[in-house]
Amino acid sequence: MPPIGVEGMLRVVSALALFDADGRVLLQRRPDGREMSGFWEFPGGKVQEGETPEEALVREIGEELGLSLVLSCLSPFSFVSYSRGGGHFLILLYVCREWGGVPRGLEGQETRWVRLSEARDLRLLPANDSLLAALRTFL
Amino acid sequence: MPPIGVEGMLRVVSALALFDADGRVLLQRRPDGREMSGFWEFPGGKVQEGETPEEALVREIGEELGLSLVLSCLSPFSFVSYSRGGGHFLILLYVCREWGGVPRGLEGQETRWVRLSEARDLRLLPANDSLLAALRTFL
Repeated sequence: MPPIGVEGMLRVVSALALFDADGRVLLQRRPDGREMSGFWEFPGGKVQEGETPEEALVREIGEELGLSLVLSCLSPFSFVSYSRGGGHFLILLYVCREWGGVPRGLEGQETRWVRLSEARDLRLLPANDSLLAALRTFL
Repeated sequence: MPPIGVEGMLRVVSALALFDADGRVLLQRRPDGREMSGFWEFPGGKVQEGETPEEALVREIGEELGLSLVLSCLSPFSFVSYSRGGGHFLILLYVCREWGGVPRGLEGQETRWVRLSEARDLRLLPANDSLLAALRTFL
């Protein structure tokens, strides 16, 4: 069996379904110039060496959106696992309903609060599609 | 931030909620002499270098129970993430309803088909408890 990616490691990504009091979820649109630009996605990013998935998510959400999250408020929800470009990716989706601050796209990305029923009309990253379906089915 | 475990890596474990036609799930009891012996758990095991989580699960279920699974029948369900003994563990739970063979405890473990409502009366591994709760809530 060939090794996965350069280092034979899974690439683990933490992603956030942040819900407001009206049951809307926060999505962001990948800005121009980035891979898969124009696609909508759950905010989050790669777990770096030495981080837990939850620590990575708190860091990424601070960097991307200027929000502060509390580790203990992150609830594991579901995941997707897929191979792309010689690597294997694991996206862990956490649900959270509490945060500090007001979301701003600090990396130039558009952000939007959307209902789950509306989110399926946006062009989501393919890997995010099944996570959205799981939210719509189970939440 | 200190590195996680010896190699600063997450330890990823794939686990299986195998359902029969009556809606019962297959659990196994950790045999004597193993860590946490006597506790019940979802079958599965650690993802090794070069494996995808799904490949690891197919291998582990063959080794532990003598069952054959098809990769495409494994449906990601939920996960837990926890620190223990200086390491950080990620358990990915897959749901599956199709398999080949008859389950046998090839590693000396007891196996049992149980209803989700009965499973909570068994002494489950702590990390498996919240996965069972998610199954009971969402399935």
